[in-house]
Amino acid sequence: MPIYNAPTKDMAFILHEVLKTQDLDIKGYDDLSADFTSQVLDEAGKLARDVFQPINASGDAEGCTLENGVLRTPTGFKEAFQTYREGGWNGLDCDPEYGGQGMPYVLHTAIAEIFCSANMALTMYPGLTHGAYSAIHAHGTDAQKQTYLPKMVDLEWSGTMNLTEPHCGTDLGLMRTKADPQSDGSYKISGQKIFISAGDNDMTDNVIHLVLAKIPGGPDGVKGISLFIVPKFMVNDDGSLGDRNGVSVGNIEEKMGIHGNATCVMNYDDATGYLLGTEHKGMRAMFTMMNEARLGVGMQGLAQAEAAYQNAVEYAKDRLQGRDVTGTKNPDGPADPLIVHPDIRRMLMNQKSFIEGSRAFTLWGAMMIDRAHGANEEAAEGLISLLTPVLKGFNTDIGYDMTVQAQQVFGGHGYIEEHGMSQFTRDARIAMIYEGANGVQALDLVGRKMPKDGGKHVMAFFEMIKTFASENKGDEAFEADFLTPLKEASKDLQSVMMYFMQAGMKNPNDALAGSTDALHMFGHVVLGLMWAQMAKTSMDALAAGTDDPEFYENKLITGRYYMQRWLPTTKAHMARAMSGSTNVMGLDADAF
Amino acid sequence: MPIYNAPTKDMAFILHEVLKTQDLDIKGYDDLSADFTSQVLDEAGKLARDVFQPINASGDAEGCTLENGVLRTPTGFKEAFQTYREGGWNGLDCDPEYGGQGMPYVLHTAIAEIFCSANMALTMYPGLTHGAYSAIHAHGTDAQKQTYLPKMVDLEWSGTMNLTEPHCGTDLGLMRTKADPQSDGSYKISGQKIFISAGDNDMTDNVIHLVLAKIPGGPDGVKGISLFIVPKFMVNDDGSLGDRNGVSVGNIEEKMGIHGNATCVMNYDDATGYLLGTEHKGMRAMFTMMNEARLGVGMQGLAQAEAAYQNAVEYAKDRLQGRDVTGTKNPDGPADPLIVHPDIRRMLMNQKSFIEGSRAFTLWGAMMIDRAHGANEEAAEGLISLLTPVLKGFNTDIGYDMTVQAQQVFGGHGYIEEHGMSQFTRDARIAMIYEGANGVQALDLVGRKMPKDGGKHVMAFFEMIKTFASENKGDEAFEADFLTPLKEASKDLQSVMMYFMQAGMKNPNDALAGSTDALHMFGHVVLGLMWAQMAKTSMDALAAGTDDPEFYENKLITGRYYMQRWLPTTKAHMARAMSGSTNVMGLDADAF
Repeated sequence: MPIYNAPTKDMAFILHEVLKTQDLDIKGYDDLSADFTSQVLDEAGKLARDVFQPINASGDAEGCTLENGVLRTPTGFKEAFQTYREGGWNGLDCDPEYGGQGMPYVLHTAIAEIFCSANMALTMYPGLTHGAYSAIHAHGTDAQKQTYLPKMVDLEWSGTMNLTEPHCGTDLGLMRTKADPQSDGSYKISGQKIFISAGDNDMTDNVIHLVLAKIPGGPDGVKGISLFIVPKFMVNDDGSLGDRNGVSVGNIEEKMGIHGNATCVMNYDDATGYLLGTEHKGMRAMFTMMNEARLGVGMQGLAQAEAAYQNAVEYAKDRLQGRDVTGTKNPDGPADPLIVHPDIRRMLMNQKSFIEGSRAFTLWGAMMIDRAHGANEEAAEGLISLLTPVLKGFNTDIGYDMTVQAQQVFGGHGYIEEHGMSQFTRDARIAMIYEGANGVQALDLVGRKMPKDGGKHVMAFFEMIKTFASENKGDEAFEADFLTPLKEASKDLQSVMMYFMQAGMKNPNDALAGSTDALHMFGHVVLGLMWAQMAKTSMDALAAGTDDPEFYENKLITGRYYMQRWLPTTKAHMARAMSGSTNVMGLDADAF
Repeated sequence: MPIYNAPTKDMAFILHEVLKTQDLDIKGYDDLSADFTSQVLDEAGKLARDVFQPINASGDAEGCTLENGVLRTPTGFKEAFQTYREGGWNGLDCDPEYGGQGMPYVLHTAIAEIFCSANMALTMYPGLTHGAYSAIHAHGTDAQKQTYLPKMVDLEWSGTMNLTEPHCGTDLGLMRTKADPQSDGSYKISGQKIFISAGDNDMTDNVIHLVLAKIPGGPDGVKGISLFIVPKFMVNDDGSLGDRNGVSVGNIEEKMGIHGNATCVMNYDDATGYLLGTEHKGMRAMFTMMNEARLGVGMQGLAQAEAAYQNAVEYAKDRLQGRDVTGTKNPDGPADPLIVHPDIRRMLMNQKSFIEGSRAFTLWGAMMIDRAHGANEEAAEGLISLLTPVLKGFNTDIGYDMTVQAQQVFGGHGYIEEHGMSQFTRDARIAMIYEGANGVQALDLVGRKMPKDGGKHVMAFFEMIKTFASENKGDEAFEADFLTPLKEASKDLQSVMMYFMQAGMKNPNDALAGSTDALHMFGHVVLGLMWAQMAKTSMDALAAGTDDPEFYENKLITGRYYMQRWLPTTKAHMARAMSGSTNVMGLDADAF
C-alpha cells in the first residue's frame, strides 16, 4: 500500500523563507502568515493522506463505468469528493462574491499539489471545475456568473473543458462542432468532442460544459471559434434543475492511467448552449486561462514525482539487498538497505533535487500569476507568459522520468501493480500530452513567447539571473557551487537564443528543430536559479543561527547535487539545439 | 490496430554489408548467404505480422487467468504458439543432435527481434524455453540432455528460470529455497519463487523449471546455491509423462505490461528436482548463460522501440494537423501531415537513429557470442563480456524512452489503449528491470567488467575504435561527420574510466555514483562506432555504384543525426560521472 505525506515543511520553506510571500505587496498576500499557511497545508495534508490517497490504487484498478448512459466513478470517490467539498477546498482562491475565500493562487497551487499527489484522478474533477469557473468568472455576464459560479465554487456542480475533436487536437482551426443561433439568444450545439476529462460523474448534480464551437458564417480557422456554456441539465430561472440537455457521454476511453477520471467522448445533439464572452473570440477566452491551466498541469508532473519519490525512499530504506561496498551498514541484518548503494542514491537524489527545485519554480510561477492578476504588473505577466510552456513541458517531462526512476528503485516490485509504482508513471504520462502536448509547448516557447515584444521578456529573465548573481556575490563557496554554474548555463541558453534568432531568420526550422532542447535548457536554468535562491536562503538561515540546522544543510547538499548532476545536461541540449535542422529534416517523409 | 513489418532490409544490410557474416570464418557462418538469411527473415516477418502481431493488443487486454490451478494464456496464443512450433523457429540455433538446425546465434537474434516486436508477451514463452535449453545443454548430463532437450527444442515442453524470491532479487545470497538430497540421487525442493516469467501455460505438455536452491550444509551466500531441473510433470523412463510434481502456480502477478505472459508465484512443496551441473555451483551455471540472456533482453528494448516507431511514422504521415511553417505541403488538404513539423521529426529521427544503431550493436554482439562460442576466441569473449551490461542496460533504457517518444507523436491518441502505443511502453518497461535491473548492469560494468583482466578488454575496445578510425581516414566529410565526434566521445569515455580508476581506488563510491552515466556513455560510443561503420559501408556502396542509392544516402543522413544529436549527450554524462560521490552520498538516509 503506497504512502503519502504532504511535504508541508518544504512548501512553507519556499513560501515564507524563499519567496517571503508574507512580506510581498500582492493582493491577498497579507493573509499569508506562516502560521496560517502551515495550518491550511497541514489540514490539506491530512485529508489527502487519510481520504484521497487510500482510494488512489483502488480507483485505478476499478476505473469508471458507463451503463445505460449513467457514469459511475470508482468506489469511495463520491464520499471523498463530498469531504473535499464540505471542507471548502475548491473555493480557496475563488471570488468571495460567489462563495470563495479569496486566497491567492499561490496557496491554491500548493494545496493542489498535495491533493494531486494523493489522488490525481480524483483531484481532476474539482480541477476541471476550477478551470471552468475561471473562464466564466473572466468572461461571463453577471447573470451567467450568478447562475453558475456559486454552485461551481461549492462543487454542487462541476465543470469541463471541451476542445478536442476526433480529427483535431492541437489544430483547433479544423473544428467541426457547430453552434446555430436561436431566436432567444441561445445556440443549438451539435458535434462530437473527445478526450473530455471529468466529462461526467456521479458526484455532482449538474455538469457545466464549456464547449468550443463554430457559429456558421463566421471566419475560417481558429478565428471563427466561439465558447459556449452547455449545462448537462437545463437550469431554471430560480436556479433549480430542469430537463436533461442534448449532451451525452458516448463512451469512456480505455487508457494508460488516471482510470479514476472519466475521459469521455461527449456527443452534442442540438444541445442548448449560451455564448460565453464574444462571438468568434472563443480562443482568446480560452487563452486567458492558459497560464493557470498549464501551470496546473506542470504541477501534476511534480506531484506524481513527489508521490513516487516518497515511496521509493521508503522502499530503499526498508529493503535489504546487498552490502555497502565501503563497509557494512547493517551488520546485524542479512544485508544492508538499498539506500546505501550509490546508484540507488543517484536515482533518489535526481528525484529529490528535481522535485524541490520544480516546486520552487511552480510556486514562484503561481506568485507571478498573482502578481500579474492582482497588481496588473505587466512585467510579471510577460515573465510568466514566457515561462508557462517551460512550467508545463519541463515539469511534466522530467516529472514523468522521475516516476520511472522511482519505479526502478523497486526492481521487479515496481513493475507489479501491488506497490502502486506503476500507477504513478501511468498517471503522470498524460501530463506530457494534455493541455498542449510538450512539443507544442516548445513551439509556443520558441515560436511565440521568446520573440514576443521584441524579446523583452527573455531579456528580463536573463536580467533576473544577472541581478541575483551580482547581489549575492562575495561568498567563494556559494559562487563556485551555485553562481558560476548558473551563470554558465544561463550564458549557454543565451547562445542558443541568439542562434535561433539568427539562423531562424533564414530558416525557421533551424530554431524549431531545437525547440524541445531549448525548453529543457530553460527549465534547467530556472531550476538552477531556484536552487541558488534556496541555497542562499539556507546559508543565511545557518549564519543567523537556527534550531534546525540540518534542514538547511540538507538543502545545500541537495542544491549542489542539482548544480553538479542535473545542470550539465544543458551542454548536450545546447550542442543539439545549435546543430541546425538539416539532420532533422534531411530525410524524405517516405524514407521513414 | 497497430501495424508491424519486419525491418528485414535493414537486418540484411547489417548482416551482409556491415558485418559481412557470409565472409567470416565463424562456425556456421558459411550457411549465412544473403539469399538464405533474406528468405528466413522474410518468413519470420510474415509469421510475426500475420499471426503474432494481431493478437498482441488482445492478449494485453485479456491477460492470463488462473482458475483451480489451471493457467490459461490469452485467446489465440495457443494457436500462434503451435504455428511457431511447427515452423521449427525455436530450434533455429539449437544443437542438431537434439533436433535443432544449428544456425548461428546472430541469425537467431535477428529472428527473435522480429517476433518480439510483433508480440513480446508471446515470444517470451519460447524465449524462456530457449534459455533453459541453453542451461541444460551446457551443464546437463547426457541422460538429462536426451530426456529434456529434444522436447524443448521442439517446444513440446517449455522451460523457465527460477531465481527471485520475495525477499531477494539481486542479492541471491539471501535465498531460502531448499533442496534436500534423497537416497536416489534426486532432491526435494521446497520454497517460493516469484516473478517467474512464463511460469506456466496451456500451450505445452510439460514445463521444465530450472530452479536455484540451497542444499543444506553448503557454503553460505551465493557460493552455496545449486541449480535444479524440476519438471511440472514427472518424466517416465520412456519419456512419457507421469504424475504431477510438487510444483504449483500460487498466483499470477497483476503488472504494468506483458499481460499475455504469465508472471507467476511458484510454490515448491517437496518437488522432485535433479541437480543440473555441480553442487553449489549453480550461480556459475547461470552465469554461463548470462551474456546471451542479457543480450536477449537488450534486444527486447530495441524490438519494442521498433514496433512503436513504425506506428508513430504511420500516424505522423496520416494525421493532418497544422501547417509546415516553411510552406504548405498538402495544399489540397485541410492541414499538413504531422511529419512536416520539426519537433515530430526530431522524435522520429531520435527513434530511427537509435534503433538502427542499436540493431547493429545487438547483431554485432550476437556475432561476438558466436565467435566466442564457435571459435573459443578469448578476445571476443572478453569484449562481449565487457559490453553485455551495455547491451542490456543502454538498449532497454533508451529503447523505453523511444517507446515513450513514439507514444508522444500520437498526442492524446497515444494515451488511450486503442492505438496500442501505451502497450509498447508498458511492455518495454520490464526490460529495464528483469535479468538484472539496469543499475546492477552499471555496477557490473564499472565494478567488474572494466577492471577485469587488468582492464585488457576495455583497452581492446578503445583499440577497436582507434583502428577503425585510422583505417578509414582520408575522406574529409567522413572524418568531420563521423570520425571526429566518435574519437572525441571515445576520448571522453577514456577520461571517465581513468577518473574511476584513480578516484575509485580511494573511494569506490566515486566510481559507482557515476556507473549509470558510464554505461550510457559506453552505449553512445558503441552506437557512434556502429554508425561510423554503417556510414563507411554506405559511402563505399555509393562510390561503387548501386541501384538503390537512396537507401545508402538515407543511412548517411540518419547516421549524421546520431552523431550530431545523440552523441553530445556524452558530455553531460562525463560531467556527472566525474563530479564525485559527495553530491550523491552526502545526505543522511534519514534526510530523504
